[in-house]
Amino acid sequence: MGLNVAQKLIKDHLAEGEMTPGEEIGLKIDQTLTQDATGTMVMLELEAMGIDRAKTEASAQYVDHNLIQEDSKNPDDHLFLQSAAKRFGLYYSKPGNGVSHPVHMQRLAKPGKTLLGSDSHTCANGCMGMLAIGAGGIDVAMAIAGEPFYVKMPKVWGVKVTGELPDWVSAKDVILEMLRRHGVKAAANHVFEYYGPGIKNLSAMDRHVIANMGAELGATGTIFPSDEETKRFMKQEHREEEWIELKADEDATYDLEEEINLSELEPMIAKPTSPGNVVPVREVAGEPIYQSYIGSSANPGYRDFAIASKMLEGQKVAENVSFDLNPTSRQMLLDLSKEGHIANFIQAGGRLHQAGCNGCIGMGQAPATGRNSLRTTPRNFPGRSGTKEDRVFLVSPETAAASALTGVITDPRTLDMDYPLVKEPENPTVDVDLLQEPLPEEEAKQVELVKGPNIATIPKMEGLPEHLELPVLLKMGDDISTDEILAGGARVLPYRSNLPEISKFCFEIVDETYYDRAMKIRDHGGHAIVGGQNYGQGSSREHAAIAPRYLGLKVALVKDFARIHWQNLANFGILPVTFVDESDWKELEQGDVLQFEELREKLGESNQFEVKVKGKDKSIKVEHALSPRQLEFILMGGLINWVKERLNR
Amino acid sequence: MGLNVAQKLIKDHLAEGEMTPGEEIGLKIDQTLTQDATGTMVMLELEAMGIDRAKTEASAQYVDHNLIQEDSKNPDDHLFLQSAAKRFGLYYSKPGNGVSHPVHMQRLAKPGKTLLGSDSHTCANGCMGMLAIGAGGIDVAMAIAGEPFYVKMPKVWGVKVTGELPDWVSAKDVILEMLRRHGVKAAANHVFEYYGPGIKNLSAMDRHVIANMGAELGATGTIFPSDEETKRFMKQEHREEEWIELKADEDATYDLEEEINLSELEPMIAKPTSPGNVVPVREVAGEPIYQSYIGSSANPGYRDFAIASKMLEGQKVAENVSFDLNPTSRQMLLDLSKEGHIANFIQAGGRLHQAGCNGCIGMGQAPATGRNSLRTTPRNFPGRSGTKEDRVFLVSPETAAASALTGVITDPRTLDMDYPLVKEPENPTVDVDLLQEPLPEEEAKQVELVKGPNIATIPKMEGLPEHLELPVLLKMGDDISTDEILAGGARVLPYRSNLPEISKFCFEIVDETYYDRAMKIRDHGGHAIVGGQNYGQGSSREHAAIAPRYLGLKVALVKDFARIHWQNLANFGILPVTFVDESDWKELEQGDVLQFEELREKLGESNQFEVKVKGKDKSIKVEHALSPRQLEFILMGGLINWVKERLNR
Repeated sequence: MGLNVAQKLIKDHLAEGEMTPGEEIGLKIDQTLTQDATGTMVMLELEAMGIDRAKTEASAQYVDHNLIQEDSKNPDDHLFLQSAAKRFGLYYSKPGNGVSHPVHMQRLAKPGKTLLGSDSHTCANGCMGMLAIGAGGIDVAMAIAGEPFYVKMPKVWGVKVTGELPDWVSAKDVILEMLRRHGVKAAANHVFEYYGPGIKNLSAMDRHVIANMGAELGATGTIFPSDEETKRFMKQEHREEEWIELKADEDATYDLEEEINLSELEPMIAKPTSPGNVVPVREVAGEPIYQSYIGSSANPGYRDFAIASKMLEGQKVAENVSFDLNPTSRQMLLDLSKEGHIANFIQAGGRLHQAGCNGCIGMGQAPATGRNSLRTTPRNFPGRSGTKEDRVFLVSPETAAASALTGVITDPRTLDMDYPLVKEPENPTVDVDLLQEPLPEEEAKQVELVKGPNIATIPKMEGLPEHLELPVLLKMGDDISTDEILAGGARVLPYRSNLPEISKFCFEIVDETYYDRAMKIRDHGGHAIVGGQNYGQGSSREHAAIAPRYLGLKVALVKDFARIHWQNLANFGILPVTFVDESDWKELEQGDVLQFEELREKLGESNQFEVKVKGKDKSIKVEHALSPRQLEFILMGGLINWVKERLNR
Repeated sequence: MGLNVAQKLIKDHLAEGEMTPGEEIGLKIDQTLTQDATGTMVMLELEAMGIDRAKTEASAQYVDHNLIQEDSKNPDDHLFLQSAAKRFGLYYSKPGNGVSHPVHMQRLAKPGKTLLGSDSHTCANGCMGMLAIGAGGIDVAMAIAGEPFYVKMPKVWGVKVTGELPDWVSAKDVILEMLRRHGVKAAANHVFEYYGPGIKNLSAMDRHVIANMGAELGATGTIFPSDEETKRFMKQEHREEEWIELKADEDATYDLEEEINLSELEPMIAKPTSPGNVVPVREVAGEPIYQSYIGSSANPGYRDFAIASKMLEGQKVAENVSFDLNPTSRQMLLDLSKEGHIANFIQAGGRLHQAGCNGCIGMGQAPATGRNSLRTTPRNFPGRSGTKEDRVFLVSPETAAASALTGVITDPRTLDMDYPLVKEPENPTVDVDLLQEPLPEEEAKQVELVKGPNIATIPKMEGLPEHLELPVLLKMGDDISTDEILAGGARVLPYRSNLPEISKFCFEIVDETYYDRAMKIRDHGGHAIVGGQNYGQGSSREHAAIAPRYLGLKVALVKDFARIHWQNLANFGILPVTFVDESDWKELEQGDVLQFEELREKLGESNQFEVKVKGKDKSIKVEHALSPRQLEFILMGGLINWVKERLNR
């Protein structure tokens, strides 16, 4: 039977497991991408693992998130990341070079390869015939160290594209239509694969738009074939020789199938406060806006800016509108500047910002309270803009520019204007110096990591001993989120590179005495916590595992775990166990001491075992759902120790 | 006897007093300038005063400081300022239009006029033959309301300029040489007046550079004559008809005289951490840098950017350098873009930011810890960059660009390069829509102020009653600074438009129970505080007066006051009195109740009077140094009430 592109990519990179949807598989990773918000911890993990040099074909460290430098923390991080890139043999992209996804696409993406990135929109590079997946920081650290990436074998959701986009409708409207049809959850454990006669009408950057927001559909990845358009794009980037064709076999099939006819689409808009809340623009036209915003990895193309520039040429945006422009890469900003588009924007009243993620992840450009903000970004979750009571709408550049002109939400088709023709520059800029090249290995080994006062090495953490006596420091109820375990936000996240400091905020919302009590016994055996249902729900933040681990957490005993936090606990060497009988939860009290004896043996024998409650003549039956691989590294104190050990074998 | 330009300007605007150096004079104010950091409080003051419409010839509200929008506070402020500008008949400059000083110079500055601004670099517009002075917010509010500005009649410090600038030396080196000669204090209560055969070799924007940093010399103002160059500049701005000639009389004299020969200058640099710490660049050449930064009101000219662009054309900045570009106005950014300079910067690796103050006032672009940052900004006080342990050097654009190229502090004369020729564009952009025009009066009256949740109307404050019984809530020692009264910084300043909220931080460093104790008795007569020497030293922050006033502070009794805080106390209706016998300070305790009887009568009769300590058979002799005008408005509850009353007469 023929294979589709997704299956070919997976087959080509299968390191472990069977290609049966739902089964765990291990994938060989060719390339990695880290950005600065997640990257500092990844680099500290590489240091702690004792990695000498990246084992991937290409790994790149981008600085695009934390570009606002209100104090020394962000610039110190930038210097640290630059030194770490040099030390470990990674490419480095300086602040101001642009958003990781389009820069990676321009400089490093290759059809037929796998890419793992510590950013949820890593999937964007699926536009280049790659299997590109977003993951947690330590997953990426492992991939850099040469380990496979473990994931459930996805189902492949085929989307047959037909027709051609009408005037005033563009790629963003395609993905918004997909979100209108399916919402933000339907595609979990699926990979989208776009194919069919219509895709020749979508440029590589159009495909980037669609692949990027596959993340919003909940997909594991989004894949386009590598075709003549991919070749054209790579030629433009002076990398034609790296192109290969990659298409589905004639007789390939898909686990799910649907069709999207580009000719039938119209301008779409996602209303607050979900990317799945999509309606045609005409249904909300006329509402006044505070802000119109063009840029981000969800509309990174030259075309996306140039079309807006042409629409605004010689005109002014409405006096009440903040018109924000976030170029997505230095290379493109240069072309936009050379072709006069930057001048158009400035003349029209635009606020031009440096290339980077900026307002898309709440780093500036927050809208006024309760005012409508139209953005070409991928997400409009409540508060993501930085404003608590925000009203963010997701739109195409055409809709954003039309609305900037009128001051109200505007279907661009209703402007008295011909659809402007946008031509790519004849000789687009290719800045091969954009990424600083990895240093030669011998030179790299001499590099010292540059650590500002807020960057702290991850301390060595011991493996689990044979016998444990762990006081229960916290007993919690249901639905404890990672925000309660370790809050996000501007007060806490600046310490993301400083485990000893960030740990001080651990569980402070639950019980502010936790930190002091944990520190007191950290070096005398550590502690356990007890929780209820859905423990660790919410954000995938790794710090919610590594911080309590630093404070001596050895075992988390709960009714059940949220999936990602469960994985994070295991990764950092905390044993996650659940009650066999949930009613035992009420048998335990804060202060009880749990006794684990012959732990290694018990864990190896069965997935259920007994835990004694010291001095209470009571014992509790618990179980775990860990794979042998996970058990192995938990016993060793977590993935960092496991990798370190393998390297020293 | 002939008059110099400063004397002519003062004579023309003298509303009260005599032109005897050191004596208080009242000056009629023609124009005002407010920026957003100080402007929100000014607008709230206008509202509280019940002002209908600005009485000046031109008043403009700029948004240039708080451009980073990490949450709703700044954008809410912008909308408030826009609505207030409409309501009170002011010009409004949107965020992204640029720094107040160059934009004001381009659009509104007029030779022969006075300008008062709530920004310490307001003096920059002295380059246009104006008397331009920086002042506190309420001073500017008073000027907008049509009241004179009171200041000590300054001495005039004549600087005769001869010669011509050599290659690689520019206006910044002139003012750095002045700072090398005189340091940061010598010019208090002086106005600089530049004249002589050399000034024809300085463009209007060069003069802006020199006038701007008169603030760093401590001067009240800096004045250039209005000559053919001024005319050329105004013609370029399509405002030739507003030009008048303004020169010193042939037989004019100066209180002080010195000469500066441009031909003898070389590239200069102010080392950390004072603008007065100046040496030739060659003395520190070779030190590695982290950052090179071009922009700010201290180097705002087209030339200042274009020269750097020409130096960098086709080259890349050193890989370790963050090269930050802060265009100073939208108009100039457009010309820089049209003439290819923006493309040069981007190609060279620059980080292009929106036009505004940005890193000059610590709003982004902070350097890494302990790393050298070269900036064309006016100030390098410790920590002003946002980084606690910063190392900021002040330089010309030539030195900044040369050092960006090499990665180390570099005297531009040592580059192997011809000094590039910079030509102003043939038809420079004039954006007459840059400033939103004042609304017609009838329309303006209908405008509602737009107040986000963090913007609070200033509550009505009562005048002083005849009899007062005031418990001493705090007894403090010497040298209490305004930072101890009300801290600055990112934790407190976001509440600058919200008096009830910002008041919660009042005196918290001295005694954190103060706020609660003050609130308890605020509406039952209020309280007094007792302090030592130099009370209220440091920053001129008005909030350090209005916040305790809001909490019920009626009388401050200290050994002596820092000058500006003393004035601020009076402005907001707090009676500032000192011990006649300083040793009485130890007679008073926290909790003592001070009794003031027949206060109005006593204050009118003499500047000394007795205050009883309730139940202690003790009385203290105090005195005040207030003018009859100040006494009048203190008794009425402060300037706001005083203006309100006059408007209703």
